[in-house]
Amino acid sequence: MRAPTLGGVLEAAIYVDDLDAAEAFYGDLLGLETVIRQEGRHVFFRCGQAILLAFDPAASRVPPGPDQLPVPPHGASGPGHVCFAAEADELERMSTALPVEGVPVEADFRWPHGPRSIYVRDPAGNSVEFAEPKLWEPSR
Amino acid sequence: MRAPTLGGVLEAAIYVDDLDAAEAFYGDLLGLETVIRQEGRHVFFRCGQAILLAFDPAASRVPPGPDQLPVPPHGASGPGHVCFAAEADELERMSTALPVEGVPVEADFRWPHGPRSIYVRDPAGNSVEFAEPKLWEPSR
Repeated sequence: MRAPTLGGVLEAAIYVDDLDAAEAFYGDLLGLETVIRQEGRHVFFRCGQAILLAFDPAASRVPPGPDQLPVPPHGASGPGHVCFAAEADELERMSTALPVEGVPVEADFRWPHGPRSIYVRDPAGNSVEFAEPKLWEPSR
Repeated sequence: MRAPTLGGVLEAAIYVDDLDAAEAFYGDLLGLETVIRQEGRHVFFRCGQAILLAFDPAASRVPPGPDQLPVPPHGASGPGHVCFAAEADELERMSTALPVEGVPVEADFRWPHGPRSIYVRDPAGNSVEFAEPKLWEPSR
């Protein structure tokens, strides 16, 4: 088939065991807007043009009932990964501010072509990266 | 701390057991540009402003060696989820073209506020959604 025209990644998913902890981290600490929360199943956050989906996999693995929208089940175990774009001055500020909030920086380095990434863990153990968007600029 | 200014989701991650199959699906079939492939560990694709990371979790769970960049390990098991933005005409075309390519449409419906989503599985079993971007427009 002719390749479809895709407008970008609209949703990225992570899996968490505690929606309250996820909302405290992604909402309160990182400042993402909570778009919707379905108690016991998921909480979704807006970040730029995309939505970060945080699911409790014990719930998202359950197939929908006959009276529900036929959303296919999914749900992973173990630490996932997501990366947010942040400019250099924000990375510098976060590298000192996050530890003060009890979120240690697990790694902080520059890639061979220059962009900086810092990594923390969310409360569920997912690897959360903040990176300069030039990390993936096509010109590199 | 003051909430950081984040520029969006720069990377979304999925886990796959077969990098060749992932590249055939995301690269050849969906037409995403392969940005980089590290044999046995990962293949990354560009989609709009974001990068889709497909990792073999058996490799990405291995902590980096002392001579490597200190990229924190991660790796999940079980079906994950990602959603790509696609306009209505593309969704309509894909809903008939994907099954011809051996990729059945698992679900195809409109959300209560109107936007359409279609869902398929990638070769690793991840739930891959294509949705109209207005699904998440703030005005809804």
